[in-house]
Amino acid sequence: MKVEPRTLPGFMELLPQEQILFNRMKEKIKNSYEKFGFLPINTPIIEKADVLLAKAGGETEKQIYRFNKGENDLALRFDLTVPLAKYVTQYYGNLSFPFRRYQIGKVYRGERPQKGRFREFYQCDIDIIGDGELSIINDAEIPSIIYATIKELGFENFTICINNRKILNGLFKELNQETISMDIMRIIDKLEKIGEENVIASLKELQVPQKAIDDIMTFIKIDGNNDEKIAKLEGLNFKDETFNNGLNELKEVIKYVRIFGVPETHFKVDLTIARGLDYYTGTVYETFLNEYREIGSVCSGGRYDNLAEYYTDKKLPGVGVSIGLTRLFYKLNELQAIQENQKSIAKVLIAPMTDEIGEALKTASYLRNKGINTEVYLENKKIKAKFKYADKLQIPYVITIGENEIQNGTVSLKNMENGEQEELTLEQVTEKLR
Amino acid sequence: MKVEPRTLPGFMELLPQEQILFNRMKEKIKNSYEKFGFLPINTPIIEKADVLLAKAGGETEKQIYRFNKGENDLALRFDLTVPLAKYVTQYYGNLSFPFRRYQIGKVYRGERPQKGRFREFYQCDIDIIGDGELSIINDAEIPSIIYATIKELGFENFTICINNRKILNGLFKELNQETISMDIMRIIDKLEKIGEENVIASLKELQVPQKAIDDIMTFIKIDGNNDEKIAKLEGLNFKDETFNNGLNELKEVIKYVRIFGVPETHFKVDLTIARGLDYYTGTVYETFLNEYREIGSVCSGGRYDNLAEYYTDKKLPGVGVSIGLTRLFYKLNELQAIQENQKSIAKVLIAPMTDEIGEALKTASYLRNKGINTEVYLENKKIKAKFKYADKLQIPYVITIGENEIQNGTVSLKNMENGEQEELTLEQVTEKLR
Repeated sequence: MKVEPRTLPGFMELLPQEQILFNRMKEKIKNSYEKFGFLPINTPIIEKADVLLAKAGGETEKQIYRFNKGENDLALRFDLTVPLAKYVTQYYGNLSFPFRRYQIGKVYRGERPQKGRFREFYQCDIDIIGDGELSIINDAEIPSIIYATIKELGFENFTICINNRKILNGLFKELNQETISMDIMRIIDKLEKIGEENVIASLKELQVPQKAIDDIMTFIKIDGNNDEKIAKLEGLNFKDETFNNGLNELKEVIKYVRIFGVPETHFKVDLTIARGLDYYTGTVYETFLNEYREIGSVCSGGRYDNLAEYYTDKKLPGVGVSIGLTRLFYKLNELQAIQENQKSIAKVLIAPMTDEIGEALKTASYLRNKGINTEVYLENKKIKAKFKYADKLQIPYVITIGENEIQNGTVSLKNMENGEQEELTLEQVTEKLR
Repeated sequence: MKVEPRTLPGFMELLPQEQILFNRMKEKIKNSYEKFGFLPINTPIIEKADVLLAKAGGETEKQIYRFNKGENDLALRFDLTVPLAKYVTQYYGNLSFPFRRYQIGKVYRGERPQKGRFREFYQCDIDIIGDGELSIINDAEIPSIIYATIKELGFENFTICINNRKILNGLFKELNQETISMDIMRIIDKLEKIGEENVIASLKELQVPQKAIDDIMTFIKIDGNNDEKIAKLEGLNFKDETFNNGLNELKEVIKYVRIFGVPETHFKVDLTIARGLDYYTGTVYETFLNEYREIGSVCSGGRYDNLAEYYTDKKLPGVGVSIGLTRLFYKLNELQAIQENQKSIAKVLIAPMTDEIGEALKTASYLRNKGINTEVYLENKKIKAKFKYADKLQIPYVITIGENEIQNGTVSLKNMENGEQEELTLEQVTEKLR
């Protein structure tokens, strides 16, 4: 009796050539984060359930993978932020602040499986955690990191949208609507989808007074370039302190984002962006690939006042963003928009022509020492099968070594794309393959 | 009420500076595997329990993390070999054979926690899977990959031990002891620990006849260099077919290991090595760091006839090895034997001296574009605090930019190790930091 091998629904499992593309994207994100000096951490995937759920509730709690092993009540991490909070509290004395960490790893949510939704997926997070305080300049560095990272992934046409939650909170307070601010936000969020009239109708249903509706509509329709939007916000002359704090923070962030060198074409003040309302307390970010707007935000995050309030009384403000790589890869792949092309690991396949594989192996060692990924075809097959293998694996070059080449101290290098074949010395091959 | 943040026992969680060393080792292993053209796969950590346990039993089944989510009976992978078997069966039609794959990932075993034993740990596996058949030359390539990989990790003094299970099985058959071969192997395995006399005593207790004991002792005491050992094995003149097949395979492997360029100093025929008896069917490997013999084998594996017999009737022979990185790192760290030194991600910290951070940020962008990991200290702290931060993070260089430097178009570069400070242009800094 054989067991039928299956992969669970909602779990991404790629063929090697797609996995290569996925890994290249992951590698580029990692390299970009390291370019800015972020430190790696790698927390366990399994944690004590009470630790992981200290902060959770609602949807999260329902989706979590939770189980017992012996006497332990365990759970799989559902994001990388709770483990970060745990980590910073636990190792507080050993860390240097501001603590800049990245973590790239799998997280788990037992969602109802649907197309493009995953139960196991990679998050690629950076956060900067302050000890007691954290300069607003960090809120401006984040967009510069997003900018560098998305460019590194090969995209040119994208927009980093920036807002400040205090502006929204202040607006609703100013309008005496703070008790239903969540509901209002949910309606505003749908503007693009349902249109202005339906937004107004929904706000009326919510019993928002006409004056407040007018102000909300004026607010979310504020347009113009970044400076014009800020000028219009100032022109509202709201007295609410939260509102004005938010506005000042936003002005500072925009000022510094420019100093950080993010081009004006690639960021914008977007007053409709809110993110998870219960978590972020200041600056918030979303990032859109303009040619693939349907993917949604590819890099989101924001500022929070207290990373670890469920674990400690220490004030640990922070700011960070996350890329949901599994979903992003899935969507880009579907749209044929992945900006990677080399789909092979080996740069060259060496196909020995004789039984004497010594020359082939020496050549392989030589090339590997020069940093070139080199595979030797070791099976006793016809030469045609060897070329077919290289072709299927999309290995760009094949080296053959026959009697002649051995005599001449050369090899034959075939370019698999255009079919050209040349007899070259190993130095020449190295030059060519690099 | 605060929740106390804790990490589960048996789960490795490192401080950033140790994590950097760990990641460098992982990266080197990956790069080495890719140098030989192995393709990456990344299977889920959660699988259906019946799929994962198709082959398991005994200890594995007790240690496994198994749980229900909805109606699904799930389990966490306990190695990377079962997922490979699943993967190859499932995607058989889409793969090219020989299928050379590497996988580096976490696996889970709920062992009783003890020092140096982990419940979550990284395995770094390579395997070469044939479709129906797989040349013995692959068994010789594996030691050449082990050789390159362990050297890449910075070690020079190590030994790859090679044996062939057929030789052991043949020996026990020749001596009519095949029914208790497992028990005999267990005793032989202890030779180094308990000494020759105790081995003989234990074999007597097992009711092994005196003649067989003599032959076993002669066999395991076979010494000399690789060629001498093989000659002595031939000199035994055993008639058993399995024994002679194993001996011929071993001769072929040793012949090709030399052609693959592994120096005679770094491999040896070791007739006492058996590995998991129920799994491997031919060549087996263990690798020891000679200066850290107490760590045990750091890279082990072997040849098997049927990778996926629990899933398919297809004959899928393979050969592979694995590095248990978590335990290896733990042990090397304990012995202060990690061959890595740079403990920082950022190569340089830029500490702005004035409120004008524009120059600092421009410098950072310049250096990052040159491939140099660069962090800017953004908090408004005294210069002393900035240097202390660099020092704690072991960042090797600090750049300061004051009024003078801005005027001269230069920066001050301080070498944190020797305290030397120089005023340099950005080109000069780049040259120095590369």
